[in-house]
Amino acid sequence: MFNSAVAAWTIAAAWEIGALDELREQGKLGVADFAERHDLHLPAASSMFRAMASVHVVERSGDTVSPGPLFDEVYRTKSFFHWLSRGCSELYTQMPRVLRNENRTGEDFYRRDAKAISFACRDINANCFDPAFWKAMHGIDFAFTTVADLGCGSGERLMQILDRYPGTRGLGIDIAPDAISVAKADAASAGLADRLAFSLGDARSLEPKPEFEDVELLTCFMMGHDFWPRDECVRSLRRIRELFPNVRRFLLGDATRTEGIPDDEIPVFTLGFEFGHDMMGVYLPTVTEWDGVFEEAGWRCLAAHPVGGLTASVVFELA
Amino acid sequence: MFNSAVAAWTIAAAWEIGALDELREQGKLGVADFAERHDLHLPAASSMFRAMASVHVVERSGDTVSPGPLFDEVYRTKSFFHWLSRGCSELYTQMPRVLRNENRTGEDFYRRDAKAISFACRDINANCFDPAFWKAMHGIDFAFTTVADLGCGSGERLMQILDRYPGTRGLGIDIAPDAISVAKADAASAGLADRLAFSLGDARSLEPKPEFEDVELLTCFMMGHDFWPRDECVRSLRRIRELFPNVRRFLLGDATRTEGIPDDEIPVFTLGFEFGHDMMGVYLPTVTEWDGVFEEAGWRCLAAHPVGGLTASVVFELA
Repeated sequence: MFNSAVAAWTIAAAWEIGALDELREQGKLGVADFAERHDLHLPAASSMFRAMASVHVVERSGDTVSPGPLFDEVYRTKSFFHWLSRGCSELYTQMPRVLRNENRTGEDFYRRDAKAISFACRDINANCFDPAFWKAMHGIDFAFTTVADLGCGSGERLMQILDRYPGTRGLGIDIAPDAISVAKADAASAGLADRLAFSLGDARSLEPKPEFEDVELLTCFMMGHDFWPRDECVRSLRRIRELFPNVRRFLLGDATRTEGIPDDEIPVFTLGFEFGHDMMGVYLPTVTEWDGVFEEAGWRCLAAHPVGGLTASVVFELA
Repeated sequence: MFNSAVAAWTIAAAWEIGALDELREQGKLGVADFAERHDLHLPAASSMFRAMASVHVVERSGDTVSPGPLFDEVYRTKSFFHWLSRGCSELYTQMPRVLRNENRTGEDFYRRDAKAISFACRDINANCFDPAFWKAMHGIDFAFTTVADLGCGSGERLMQILDRYPGTRGLGIDIAPDAISVAKADAASAGLADRLAFSLGDARSLEPKPEFEDVELLTCFMMGHDFWPRDECVRSLRRIRELFPNVRRFLLGDATRTEGIPDDEIPVFTLGFEFGHDMMGVYLPTVTEWDGVFEEAGWRCLAAHPVGGLTASVVFELA
């Protein structure tokens, strides 16, 4: 268990510095050569590969490192390790302080690394949510000209949609000014500045805007739990319905709280995700709780596409 | 592996907030009751015990938590988890940055939590080094009146010695002003202010002081590797020999670098300790390297007491 804890950090780091991808593509690497090419401290880099070898992620033979028995599984789940060990490290490290009610005041009683979380979430989106998302997209049986993404982050999802649907326009809304600046710059350098606009806003309490009337397709990924608790969620979803009167489809994807999993069968990510949100004091609804909310909020649930590789995660197709 | 990584943080926290001790002493606890007594956020506390249950450290039945199959092993090694997850968390989290040579400049290219490390090291000292230390102490065949501890930290070892050897006096030397203030306060409240003095100093480059002449017994624990690399170690140990001319015994205890352990058999703590020091750029000598240094530095090694529970750790008895 101790070595697994050390290894979790190395997986996040090895992915970030390119070692996991190189191992996957080349089938092996030389430690000294890798360290030199990336200008890494050799003893530390060697130790990093040793830590991964201690839990069978890689195998070492002299200076040569090759994928071990657990490599494929770890490669598939690398972004979960990154989310935990890089993105949420400070929250978990400060557990003794964060647990105490007396310290849980104000907005800033915990800290996470927003940049690292966004790095991990891009991969989680691509590997987990994308297949279910595109399945829902392909089922859309009407032409649309305008799509809006609530909690758009870097705007990557919008750019992918605009790429696949020529002639459409996009609107990204996010609560984080930093994300908006990055998204604007990315859209500009992708030559999408004229088709893609971004605006700062909290999806839970948006002010009406004329451009909302054009939107026929809404998307919202990995922030649905922020709408909760229940009463507020009903209110927010109803308000979104009113603010976007011409929306014909709303694709809402998120990880939900699991139910009834025995303690020793909790799958990868689930434990860290649910525990992390408990520490932050963010309520995570179950799929059943979600199901019970839509009608009251003025939406009809056409389908719930399960998300592969992320327990109890789902893309709701709302109309 | 993911759940083990989450659990490592919970072990450190559960120890710090008293849950591990309560489970050990009472055999069980109620989560709601425990959270209320310690004023903890209940969902977060429940999640903490769930995380420990996911890796068999505890078992949950409704609200009741009891020790699981791995509890005893984890209780014995709790301070290693604390050292890693609380003390060295930032160093490990920043691995992608720390690995790069371009970032490894100045004294502060990494950060650790000195207070958390001192908390963990007190327990590591008590559980691992103490038996070997007292074995070496009991073998001392001469009466002494003055003992000095290099890198004394909180001064706890000195207070224990003074407690067991009435009529003796102690001198603690540490590089950290904070540690010295704590140690002074602790000594005063233990009624030892007249027998125990502390002074700020780096054991690797001490200036002569008149009181050093009185010292007959020297101790130095968990900082021996800071004397290295080899040439500097020889110089430092020789200088200590000169500065303390009347020392008849020098007990030097430290964790050393292991040799020849297969990657998948690395015991608890070893991997994290060696990897951490590689990241910090601190050389860890092997036992063999230590053995080769004493004679050249003017010391004779009478015995090397192995330290139970800490691979390749040893208390050298020097004269």
